Amino acid sequence: MTSWRWSIYPILALVIVLLGGCRGEAAQEQQPMVRLSKLIIDPSELEAYKSALKEEVTASVQREAGVLTLYAVFEKERPTHVTILEIYANRAAYEQHIKSPHFLKYKKGTEHMVKSLELIDTTPLVPGMKIK
Amino acid sequence: MTSWRWSIYPILALVIVLLGGCRGEAAQEQQPMVRLSKLIIDPSELEAYKSALKEEVTASVQREAGVLTLYAVFEKERPTHVTILEIYANRAAYEQHIKSPHFLKYKKGTEHMVKSLELIDTTPLVPGMKIK
Repeated sequence: MTSWRWSIYPILALVIVLLGGCRGEAAQEQQPMVRLSKLIIDPSELEAYKSALKEEVTASVQREAGVLTLYAVFEKERPTHVTILEIYANRAAYEQHIKSPHFLKYKKGTEHMVKSLELIDTTPLVPGMKIK
Repeated sequence: MTSWRWSIYPILALVIVLLGGCRGEAAQEQQPMVRLSKLIIDPSELEAYKSALKEEVTASVQREAGVLTLYAVFEKERPTHVTILEIYANRAAYEQHIKSPHFLKYKKGTEHMVKSLELIDTTPLVPGMKIK
């Protein structure tokens, strides 16, 4: 009986570690997801691209509670260089967003306009920061 | 008398053009100023830099009506690479910001921590975009 009692401790320890890991992962899943998307657009398609992106970001922020912002800026010196600050309430909100009809329409409609795309995952310094 | 009447037209035209130019410039001065600041921080100073930046952005947004946001993100893959989305109500708000005591304290306190700084002026796609 004594040996049975002792042998259960490593198993209990393992269960505790695994549960801890799951909680950590679940907590991360619930954190806001903040990304910079950097794109370079074909100059001959710039106006068409802007129009499609405007429609997409407006629809996403209006219709999807979990899309907190899609703030797109075009560089003044290099107008074909776009950076988008994307904030989603959590990873699930992002996964839902990329399946939305307005995102899929934008993605399909602009793929020939995009010369390069870089996705940079980031950590915000002040997660509660807003735009006044 | 007739020749005097005719000779005034080019002068009137010039005055109208000049006034139009001034209005255009004044309108631009009143537009939001949107900038990306990209910095690379000395790795040995990263935590101290984050602390100083956090203090500065929080104070600026709280105390200055014309600082609409200073949204700073650190890249996950390259944690010393920072991008700050800076939105000011207009150029005057920016000029006032860089003279504020909290900005000057940050600037002086972190200059030895900053390995590179790039300021990129931009045009926002949707100027009224917020963070929900």
